[in-house]
Amino acid sequence: MPDVGVIIAGGGQGTRIGGKTPKQFLPLAGLPVLARTVGLFNGIRDVSSIVVVVPGAFVGRAKRLLRRAGPGKVVAVIPGGRNRQESVWEGLQAFKSRPDIILVHDAVRPFVRPATVAQVIKAVRGFGAAVVGVRVTDTIKVGNAVGYYVTTLDRSTLWAVQTPQGFRSDLLFSAHRAARRNRFVGTDEASLVERLGVMVRIVEGDYGNIKITTREDLRVAKMMAK
Amino acid sequence: MPDVGVIIAGGGQGTRIGGKTPKQFLPLAGLPVLARTVGLFNGIRDVSSIVVVVPGAFVGRAKRLLRRAGPGKVVAVIPGGRNRQESVWEGLQAFKSRPDIILVHDAVRPFVRPATVAQVIKAVRGFGAAVVGVRVTDTIKVGNAVGYYVTTLDRSTLWAVQTPQGFRSDLLFSAHRAARRNRFVGTDEASLVERLGVMVRIVEGDYGNIKITTREDLRVAKMMAK
Repeated sequence: MPDVGVIIAGGGQGTRIGGKTPKQFLPLAGLPVLARTVGLFNGIRDVSSIVVVVPGAFVGRAKRLLRRAGPGKVVAVIPGGRNRQESVWEGLQAFKSRPDIILVHDAVRPFVRPATVAQVIKAVRGFGAAVVGVRVTDTIKVGNAVGYYVTTLDRSTLWAVQTPQGFRSDLLFSAHRAARRNRFVGTDEASLVERLGVMVRIVEGDYGNIKITTREDLRVAKMMAK
Repeated sequence: MPDVGVIIAGGGQGTRIGGKTPKQFLPLAGLPVLARTVGLFNGIRDVSSIVVVVPGAFVGRAKRLLRRAGPGKVVAVIPGGRNRQESVWEGLQAFKSRPDIILVHDAVRPFVRPATVAQVIKAVRGFGAAVVGVRVTDTIKVGNAVGYYVTTLDRSTLWAVQTPQGFRSDLLFSAHRAARRNRFVGTDEASLVERLGVMVRIVEGDYGNIKITTREDLRVAKMMAK
């Protein structure tokens, strides 16, 4: 079996939620979000190593709370870069030996199902690159710069993507290197890989794999964690 | 001032939530969703008449609960058609005299802000057609039929549209007639108007104007209604 490394991307300061503590450190039913998310990947057999990226000022705190959660597979806790993509790039350098497959997962998505993670790993084995997505339920329109919308997209083709996003590690490294060379910044890893001309597989996930970004998300997460 | 009619679109059976009662009839802090939504439009000065569309089997129930909520501006409670678009079409026929402006609003969006409704009315006065939208926060990708995604959309141009959607009434009638003629079914009213070549204005709303579709939405709505 190829070994799987995981980068937990938690470098964001979480300014949208307010308060001084980034949302990945807030407690959900007694356990910090980050500990829940890392714990989940600790429990997945194929995962051999986990790199955790957090804001520079919170590295010590993250190490302490992860130590408290027991040994596990965390091999490094490192400070993030100035955006998500930089943080993942830093994470890539932190593996002691390069895993065959690397998954990138948002620290603030503590509710992903292990079965979904397993499906992503399987899809990466088969196809090289895979993202979790859910079908878009809203009507999505494309707006122009002056406040009108110009067209309605065909909803049946649209996917809202989540994490984990998984890749053969050589592919992910190449994609990051190419993006750095071209000064391209994407909103996720798959958009970097896509620019290499690689087709990325979609693994259908569920709406419960929420990203805790706003205060409202946090309230929902607290209900879900009960 | 032009007079404004409102169609409250609540013809759906709400099968996604489970149970026999459509979600527009479920209580939020003691008041059924439908009564909340109608009450909100009753309170908007420019609104002169409201047509409520509900599933055929629930017309009596809707009439009773709206009567209990006090007089208000409801001029008709009618059974819906076999899809949302048909329901709105039926609603259009139910105004005693045709208003200058018609707003269409989802029965299951009880949290829209009156200020947002006022902005929609103002935009319709100026531009003929307007929808409430919020900026998309997810990364959205376009999938193909065989389980790959083919491209990532530029998120900065994307809007998730909500309701109310407002139109000069002649425009909305023309758009519905054209769609019927061409057997086009859209996911919202604006997509019918767009097919006439009319540019639709976007009014920026807020994420609290949720559509109660799933059981999870209902839990969030109950928290919000407290």
